[in-house]
Amino acid sequence: MVETVHIREVGLRDGLQNIAQPMPTELKLDWCRAEAAAGIHEIEVCSFVPPKLLPQFADAAELARAALALPDLTVSALIPNMKGAERGVEIGVHQLNYVMSVSESHNQSNVRRSTADSLEDLKRIIDFVREAEPERRPRVACGLATSFGCTIEGTVDPNRVVRLAAEVAAAGADEIVLADTVGYGEPNGIRALFARVIETVHPLPVAAHFHDTRGLGLANVAAALEVGVRHFDASLCGLGGCPYAPGATGNVVTEDVVFLCESMGFSTGVDIEALLAVRDIVARGVPHEPLLGQIAKAGLPKGFSYAGTATAA
Amino acid sequence: MVETVHIREVGLRDGLQNIAQPMPTELKLDWCRAEAAAGIHEIEVCSFVPPKLLPQFADAAELARAALALPDLTVSALIPNMKGAERGVEIGVHQLNYVMSVSESHNQSNVRRSTADSLEDLKRIIDFVREAEPERRPRVACGLATSFGCTIEGTVDPNRVVRLAAEVAAAGADEIVLADTVGYGEPNGIRALFARVIETVHPLPVAAHFHDTRGLGLANVAAALEVGVRHFDASLCGLGGCPYAPGATGNVVTEDVVFLCESMGFSTGVDIEALLAVRDIVARGVPHEPLLGQIAKAGLPKGFSYAGTATAA
Repeated sequence: MVETVHIREVGLRDGLQNIAQPMPTELKLDWCRAEAAAGIHEIEVCSFVPPKLLPQFADAAELARAALALPDLTVSALIPNMKGAERGVEIGVHQLNYVMSVSESHNQSNVRRSTADSLEDLKRIIDFVREAEPERRPRVACGLATSFGCTIEGTVDPNRVVRLAAEVAAAGADEIVLADTVGYGEPNGIRALFARVIETVHPLPVAAHFHDTRGLGLANVAAALEVGVRHFDASLCGLGGCPYAPGATGNVVTEDVVFLCESMGFSTGVDIEALLAVRDIVARGVPHEPLLGQIAKAGLPKGFSYAGTATAA
Repeated sequence: MVETVHIREVGLRDGLQNIAQPMPTELKLDWCRAEAAAGIHEIEVCSFVPPKLLPQFADAAELARAALALPDLTVSALIPNMKGAERGVEIGVHQLNYVMSVSESHNQSNVRRSTADSLEDLKRIIDFVREAEPERRPRVACGLATSFGCTIEGTVDPNRVVRLAAEVAAAGADEIVLADTVGYGEPNGIRALFARVIETVHPLPVAAHFHDTRGLGLANVAAALEVGVRHFDASLCGLGGCPYAPGATGNVVTEDVVFLCESMGFSTGVDIEALLAVRDIVARGVPHEPLLGQIAKAGLPKGFSYAGTATAA
């Protein structure tokens, strides 16, 4: 039996949020359309932050509405707070992705409140969402940023991650995302922590959000696959990083994650050649950004076959 | 108990062999000296191919002799045939690294003979080496190229790799190196094949030689570590690739491999900061090459500690 791995494209949010020059809305929508056609069935299309904070997301509502019209696509959006949740429900997105940091210092620096306050906010958001009419009721995912380390605090206690995950599950979240926000994770720690959290919040899905900052992104994806993680965030062309940190790298590259999963025998439902073609749209949308990705450079191996098929490329 | 991982620098051979402009001998030696001082205790310093074939290695004998004078360094050299073995024994290098391809087509294209003929050649080389005086008798390692796939044949049968490894062991080799020459390997295949070969040739050391062509280099290192591989080839700055294949990437990056191993709790004996400083020498030696590596860009995580120490960076 071939198992399925679900990949959520986050390049339009995590990738674009660090790029000052807004990508034209039409190109963002082309990106969504083409990637959905290539087989990626969940896309985080935007962040519902105040537009004056991030002009890149001034078109969030317009883009989300347009993306909702695309077939076979789960449209999700990042929300920083209740205001974002209200916008998401009003527009009718399928999933809201809330984020808090496990590291107190990182949470304070990011959203200027304690982790406990962020957790209370999540509970209020889930209560609010439950009041929505069933057909406008989105799923709520909660990301736990800095789960594998923090640039301010350094080491993050895995016990704290497990406790917080349990509280998030008890609050009624539909999905938990462990995020290696700053690329500190390594395979042993990844395996150990995901195994504990999966066991703790069972049967909630636990997704992995990895950055390739120190080159271990795909090694960490492989490690997470080993302990049963089947949901991954990834960014086309590895878009992301931070304009204030020249060395910073974005999320793991969607194309390369798909290749890794298929090579390891997990079916993603994605057509890699079609996915690679979407890079042209990204290149037009953010012409000054480096586009990362090894499969784009090297191509598929001779004799490559997708998981669960006998078809050789 | 912290286990030790041994990393062999191959940038001076596998990295430089695809760079037409010879790196000055003095810089090559500086590279060896600085990397040995940083804690890398084995370096493949050259290839004993005919200089007219690869002018990059015209200084092979001179460099090998100079490297042999460095303290705490195992000096190895690639040999394509008996002629190379003779040069190696004459100079007194510590280890000869012979290579043959598991793929018949790749072996034919590379050295214009069958794999069976290459195996016979290895036997003759081992017999010759055994005749040398004990103090001039090098160890002989045998690399099995294309162990995880071939650009000509596509898939390579793992049973063939295991059979060949057994024959190489029976011939008296001191080490076997499974090489993912073209970057086709993935973690599951890596784990399965290394486990079988390690069991088959026990107690011979089985080393891993990985290329990062499709981004899975470090994921494959992590997978090999899981099944007991403790010897890895790597190239400083990821030097390598092929001038005729723009997408081709070199060996896994030494700095990043060291970081991965130490992060996972394996001691390498390497000082990462000192290792990163060696990049300046490489930059001067091959000024037109892109220097890869994520740790060089992003730096060590805050709170990073080496395996087996309580010292935080």
